[in-house]
Amino acid sequence: MLNQSLISDRTHRMSVNAIREILKVVSQPGMISLAGGIPAPGSFPMDIIRELSRQVIDTYGSTAFQYGPTEGFAPLRHHLAERLIKKGIQTTPENVFISSGSQGALDAVGKVLISKGDKIGVESPTYLGAIQAFDPYEPEYVTLVTDEKGLVPESLETVLGRTSLKFIYLVPTFQNPSGRTLPMERRERIAAILTRYDVLLVEDDPYSDLRYDGEALKPLKALAPDHVLYIGTLSKVFAPGLRVGFYVPPALLEDWLVIVKQGVDLHTSTFNQALAAEYLSGNHLEQHLPHIIARYKPKKDAMLEALATFFPNDFTWSRPEGGMFVWVEGPPGYDMQALYQRGLKKSVAFVPGKYFFVDPQKGMETMRLNFTMANEATIHAAIHILSSLL
Amino acid sequence: MLNQSLISDRTHRMSVNAIREILKVVSQPGMISLAGGIPAPGSFPMDIIRELSRQVIDTYGSTAFQYGPTEGFAPLRHHLAERLIKKGIQTTPENVFISSGSQGALDAVGKVLISKGDKIGVESPTYLGAIQAFDPYEPEYVTLVTDEKGLVPESLETVLGRTSLKFIYLVPTFQNPSGRTLPMERRERIAAILTRYDVLLVEDDPYSDLRYDGEALKPLKALAPDHVLYIGTLSKVFAPGLRVGFYVPPALLEDWLVIVKQGVDLHTSTFNQALAAEYLSGNHLEQHLPHIIARYKPKKDAMLEALATFFPNDFTWSRPEGGMFVWVEGPPGYDMQALYQRGLKKSVAFVPGKYFFVDPQKGMETMRLNFTMANEATIHAAIHILSSLL
Repeated sequence: MLNQSLISDRTHRMSVNAIREILKVVSQPGMISLAGGIPAPGSFPMDIIRELSRQVIDTYGSTAFQYGPTEGFAPLRHHLAERLIKKGIQTTPENVFISSGSQGALDAVGKVLISKGDKIGVESPTYLGAIQAFDPYEPEYVTLVTDEKGLVPESLETVLGRTSLKFIYLVPTFQNPSGRTLPMERRERIAAILTRYDVLLVEDDPYSDLRYDGEALKPLKALAPDHVLYIGTLSKVFAPGLRVGFYVPPALLEDWLVIVKQGVDLHTSTFNQALAAEYLSGNHLEQHLPHIIARYKPKKDAMLEALATFFPNDFTWSRPEGGMFVWVEGPPGYDMQALYQRGLKKSVAFVPGKYFFVDPQKGMETMRLNFTMANEATIHAAIHILSSLL
Repeated sequence: MLNQSLISDRTHRMSVNAIREILKVVSQPGMISLAGGIPAPGSFPMDIIRELSRQVIDTYGSTAFQYGPTEGFAPLRHHLAERLIKKGIQTTPENVFISSGSQGALDAVGKVLISKGDKIGVESPTYLGAIQAFDPYEPEYVTLVTDEKGLVPESLETVLGRTSLKFIYLVPTFQNPSGRTLPMERRERIAAILTRYDVLLVEDDPYSDLRYDGEALKPLKALAPDHVLYIGTLSKVFAPGLRVGFYVPPALLEDWLVIVKQGVDLHTSTFNQALAAEYLSGNHLEQHLPHIIARYKPKKDAMLEALATFFPNDFTWSRPEGGMFVWVEGPPGYDMQALYQRGLKKSVAFVPGKYFFVDPQKGMETMRLNFTMANEATIHAAIHILSSLL
């Protein structure tokens, strides 16, 4: 019989995404889940999708179902470039590339850049999906100091002064899991550091369109264009099941990232790219986005209000202006995993924060709360229940 | 400025898929292309797709646009299992996994199995897309002897007697590029060898449904189920732009392949999987497949007839009973690359066969001819033109 000796060295490093396993547990009926990280299905523009499906078949015919270029469907690249320029990113359609979700871009980045043992700078906590994309390429992680305003620029400079990083991975806006956003002043300092140390930063930006309060901030890509690889997605503002993401790399990496994607999936679904192109071109996104925001903002406010009402003084939490998550920190030594188990018995689920740290010793006292799936009353009740279990 | 030192060791091994570059050259207007390897757009069931899009949105609603399980969309796994059982593969829906095209399965296989320097047995010539999927994981290739009936079982046994292969990669039916099919007797002998040497074989089977003559043959997976990882796709019988493939692995590999896919793209497009599920469930595939076959068979016959009419005696070619390709071999030392250049000047394109060999010294005298894209009269004319340039 075939046995485990068949498995490659790199694979033995990998493990099941713990959060996906948690999500299976908490998908039981009756469970109130603050655990997920997914958009509310009610936020999908179903009527628009129905109309656009018809329209794509009429407009593009069999072309929308044929093999397409690895770089992406030209009309989609065109409309994304227009949208990115409005965010301050200087680009052309030829510099925008389509990936199979932002996960596809993260995998390609790992494959093209990481040699075994290369060091990658990450936030603490950081996005688990990125770690899962990078791990197979056998990097080492260097934890950068993070506070309630995100990455501390001095920490980055200190690290770069003593070691060489292959790249830095950051979710600067409404981070998953912390909900934190890097302020403009720090963005400018980090951009200057990138240029000074000639180092690459991967800016993962899935949430910035989901802003409920405050003013939009320029992406790092706008500030240090030659040193930032920008990754975006339509999963949070259109539909995640379509798996359409995109990226704008420094010129050096363009060809390599395309070559790598050829070997992984040839190209992203042409039909789904055409749907996305029509969604952007018809101004549907701009018209639909306010509805998504109107749906999520009261949920975020309800969660912050319930935390302020019910949670004790020795717990702190982030106050995000957007995105999908609130990050809670208990007092030092607090065991959030135990709270998770008690919560399950009362049918309230969340994700223990420890899963978002590359150092397995860290984050025991933290939790990630999602506010996009439950309604306001349920969020209020769930936070009340959790507070009674603290 | 960032420079090439950023690129990982593995990436420097990779190169652009030469055939995709050729396809860019030959997509100019007026060019007769026998170079492609893609289905005729007229073979796509556009009316059915239009109806199924409506139906999926009505039946599944937002579920078809939400994140889904990495393993695949349950109704599609169910219908694929039914179909595979009819081919002699003993499986259940839980053992059928969805990939982003068969390319996605090939990438996952490479990632899970190949440690640097591992040996993989391949046909000669072999499918270029598989090599492109495996190369980033830095294997070495061992060329197995192939004749007009495909892999020679004795060659496999000789190699296994003296060296250890991580796995063997085979396209046993209507191979790309050669069009050759492994006869039943060889399948049985190879299955016995796999079991005796306890070695894994990856059976890539994109074309077996496109059979124009002769009787269907059992897949190797049906003969040595514990030692074969079977890969299929809906690209040739539904629509390639949807990027829906699938695989049935030995039990040992199931979990690893899913973990790896989580990091690469989370899952394949839910909408496209739902379209595929409806295509299979409504018997649409069984009803549409005869139309595809009726479209391609006369093209295949036209190409074989034109070759017999126009090509000289010292050229030989495969006589496939299905698939998309005819393989031509010139006399020893013949320079098919030079013919390719002369063909371009007369607006007739094909793919020089050398690109399908892992040994760069081999295949100079060979060419791959595709018969699915041009019509019969054009195929006749193109073969006539090529013969005049020999």
